[in-house]
Amino acid sequence: MVVKSELKLIKSLQQKKCRNEHGLFVVEGKKTVEEVVNSNINAYKIFAVDPSGLKEEDIQVEKVTARELSQMSSLKNPNGYLGVFYIPKPIERITSDWVLVLDGVQDPGNLGTIIRLCDWFGISDIVCSTDTVDCYNSKVLQATMGSITRINIKYMNLESFLSETKLPIYGTFMDGISVNESRLPEKGIMVMGNEGKGVSDAVAQLCTDRLAIPQFGGVTTESLNVASATAILLHEIRK
Amino acid sequence: MVVKSELKLIKSLQQKKCRNEHGLFVVEGKKTVEEVVNSNINAYKIFAVDPSGLKEEDIQVEKVTARELSQMSSLKNPNGYLGVFYIPKPIERITSDWVLVLDGVQDPGNLGTIIRLCDWFGISDIVCSTDTVDCYNSKVLQATMGSITRINIKYMNLESFLSETKLPIYGTFMDGISVNESRLPEKGIMVMGNEGKGVSDAVAQLCTDRLAIPQFGGVTTESLNVASATAILLHEIRK
Repeated sequence: MVVKSELKLIKSLQQKKCRNEHGLFVVEGKKTVEEVVNSNINAYKIFAVDPSGLKEEDIQVEKVTARELSQMSSLKNPNGYLGVFYIPKPIERITSDWVLVLDGVQDPGNLGTIIRLCDWFGISDIVCSTDTVDCYNSKVLQATMGSITRINIKYMNLESFLSETKLPIYGTFMDGISVNESRLPEKGIMVMGNEGKGVSDAVAQLCTDRLAIPQFGGVTTESLNVASATAILLHEIRK
Repeated sequence: MVVKSELKLIKSLQQKKCRNEHGLFVVEGKKTVEEVVNSNINAYKIFAVDPSGLKEEDIQVEKVTARELSQMSSLKNPNGYLGVFYIPKPIERITSDWVLVLDGVQDPGNLGTIIRLCDWFGISDIVCSTDTVDCYNSKVLQATMGSITRINIKYMNLESFLSETKLPIYGTFMDGISVNESRLPEKGIMVMGNEGKGVSDAVAQLCTDRLAIPQFGGVTTESLNVASATAILLHEIRK
């Protein structure tokens, strides 16, 4: 049985404020829980309706009822497994050749997809503006599919980060130079902007190069989804 | 006031079966409603809490209460505007140089993003297997951002469609040839598979070319999200 105060604590982790206060975050679903357990992220507690379903034998799993699980879960239909983990401290040092910078990305699904893309393309560092959606948001974690454990994500003031680097800073803009006509260097920073407003003015001024993904045919749609644009740009970086 | 039977009808359109039965689909949100109104798709009825907010003057808008709107809406927080439209008949003839084929894509957000990508890259024809998620699903429509009005989407047996074409059929597979080393022709068919299972065996046998998007660094993530992969491939087609 899970005590009431613990149910309340876990439920509260759906809010960013409470996650930061307690230094904990929640992951749901068997596969993702297992992936985080197997990473260097420390587990606080793992709950399962059927603990025997988990492959890990040396991990402490608390058996819960479906009702208890649903009281902790952020999902309409909880899927049997919920893990609470300690939020890892971001690594200060940038180790990736290319760094992805996110300037105000708001949609959790987009951030989750972008984290997964970085994992695929071997970009191990993401630097987010402080107004970017929290990467420990449950919807972000659902979309990352475990990639969160392999990417170093920092939230900080972008202007101070970008003004200190000597790397070329590529920003994506509607009126930029076609990425098809650009030769991307071996190292650099790629800035992706907010879904509606794009890159902020302050950050745009720090960009050394302005890129665009060319549209084909009539100009009808307003923009590419930021996750789709990131997919294309990371692919170009790695070609 | 909206009569009860009409509320019930509109609510029922959240189910594919009912959409097909009545030949109607629902769009929510001011911007998307306006975009569909301005397309060649015929409106059945438009509802708004504040009809004066809509730009269109020559369109019949029924004023509804917030309560009535929430009874029709599929959203937790309905956003003031809801349009019911007639499902357009797909155009038989393929007009696009490249055709995108979807073999069992299940996630509505993925299909919505893919439709939007086709719009951006000027691919006007999508052919879906009959087990692909319905493009008039509300979550698909939310993700398409109005692109649905510009793309011709057909659901049919893929084997019969693919066995009749003379175009090269590119399938995407984990073990395919790197898209970076392939020269894509001016016309062709690009097949994207299901999120978990990829391209089905029957369809794979009809593919003339097997493509892959190369991963970078350690092989850690299982796969690219299908919408991200589509973004990269359509970009390559248009380069």
